[in-house]
Amino acid sequence: MQNVRARIAYDGSRFFGWQRQEGFASVQEALEEALSGLCRNRVVVHGSGRTDTGVHALGQVASFHVDTWLSDERLLHALNAHLPEGVVVQDLETCRAGFHALRDARGKRYAYLVHTTPFRQPWGREYGHWVPLELDLDAMRRGAAELRGRHDFTSFANAGSPRASNVRTVRALHVLARRRLVAFVVEGDGFLYNMVRTLAGTLLQVGLGKLAPEVVGEILAARDRRLAGPTAPAAGLWLVSVRYGEPCFRGARRPSGCFRP
Amino acid sequence: MQNVRARIAYDGSRFFGWQRQEGFASVQEALEEALSGLCRNRVVVHGSGRTDTGVHALGQVASFHVDTWLSDERLLHALNAHLPEGVVVQDLETCRAGFHALRDARGKRYAYLVHTTPFRQPWGREYGHWVPLELDLDAMRRGAAELRGRHDFTSFANAGSPRASNVRTVRALHVLARRRLVAFVVEGDGFLYNMVRTLAGTLLQVGLGKLAPEVVGEILAARDRRLAGPTAPAAGLWLVSVRYGEPCFRGARRPSGCFRP
Repeated sequence: MQNVRARIAYDGSRFFGWQRQEGFASVQEALEEALSGLCRNRVVVHGSGRTDTGVHALGQVASFHVDTWLSDERLLHALNAHLPEGVVVQDLETCRAGFHALRDARGKRYAYLVHTTPFRQPWGREYGHWVPLELDLDAMRRGAAELRGRHDFTSFANAGSPRASNVRTVRALHVLARRRLVAFVVEGDGFLYNMVRTLAGTLLQVGLGKLAPEVVGEILAARDRRLAGPTAPAAGLWLVSVRYGEPCFRGARRPSGCFRP
Repeated sequence: MQNVRARIAYDGSRFFGWQRQEGFASVQEALEEALSGLCRNRVVVHGSGRTDTGVHALGQVASFHVDTWLSDERLLHALNAHLPEGVVVQDLETCRAGFHALRDARGKRYAYLVHTTPFRQPWGREYGHWVPLELDLDAMRRGAAELRGRHDFTSFANAGSPRASNVRTVRALHVLARRRLVAFVVEGDGFLYNMVRTLAGTLLQVGLGKLAPEVVGEILAARDRRLAGPTAPAAGLWLVSVRYGEPCFRGARRPSGCFRP
């Protein structure tokens, strides 16, 4: 039995979220079915965390125990050959026996994408949130500054699974813009349920002039979800990467770049 | 009656090409139906040229005569409100009576996109061609150099509508690359049927080492379609812009950037 971790990308519009649930196609199920088929044994896949329906991943990380005679490279190719459209394992490696994608996660990076074209564009509907209005970047950046650091984020958490503490550290929160695309990029040690989408929804209110940038700090201090902006739609949210306390996926596949069959 | 020109973007995977044909949803039909509904009169839309099923447009140009009391700005919004998903008019302006999108076109710019990720990515299947192999950029650039200029492109034209001459000028042909995306960007005064896709298919053969860069010039000189590479798939092709001998779409909408309702 070996412990394996994988870096996974998926199109959230094709699945009912990460987590396996009877009767709904999930990413976890797709991976478990493909692995179980390959290894002729029931394989359980642990993700670094759940993502909701419609939320995309560029670099979700998952770990699982498998009993296989295949090398990492061959397992990677076999697994991708068995996965349905919309999910791909970008990289995979055997790791120390104790590694667990959820328990060992030290932080995550998300991006929330907003298209500000005057008209809805012909493509990309499922991959970004569309706001046909000019956004005040400067105001959003001042609002974002209020959110960085270690805070109780109760005001930005929707009712989800209850947790011991709502204190989290937002290590970085940047507002990037290029042409008609605005991206909120946020890094933290962990996020409450719907926290990134609520941060995005609140910053959008600031960008639209409906909320003053200074008020964001007051909302944070009040610890009251009713004061923050709406939860922005799932389609704009991307799980970019997961951080661990050890180097991951630094094998030969990375520098070489391209796969040669 | 006023003459209007429009800059149009569409998702080619949602239509059976540009040209109207009974029983198949086309971009031309979508525009004509929307305009005819708005103006309560049959409107005929002339595009700068056809695009095949699966080919996308960022900046297709079309012209049409309409009888309307709406300003350009209001017509633009009304038209977009009546168009189906997958096609959008980015800009629109009343122009001189004699302007004709097809007859007055002086040149076009296309981009052909190739993804070189080792595995098929979860998204974008319809918006680029996937080649899971490393491409030799230097070789493709040397091959591209052979194609620039004024030549008889018979070797790169599929049997389409017959034309008086197969001589065309390729003003620019660049091979761009960023991470796992390769783009062929080509500008010319006109293109033969499937010419851009055949140029792309041939340069891909060069990039894969199946064809020496110097041979591209020999293929061109031979005027024999059987010698060039295969026609690359439609999904990778984007009509970027159409050039005219007069300034187009330079109105207030351009500098101001965003629409404010």
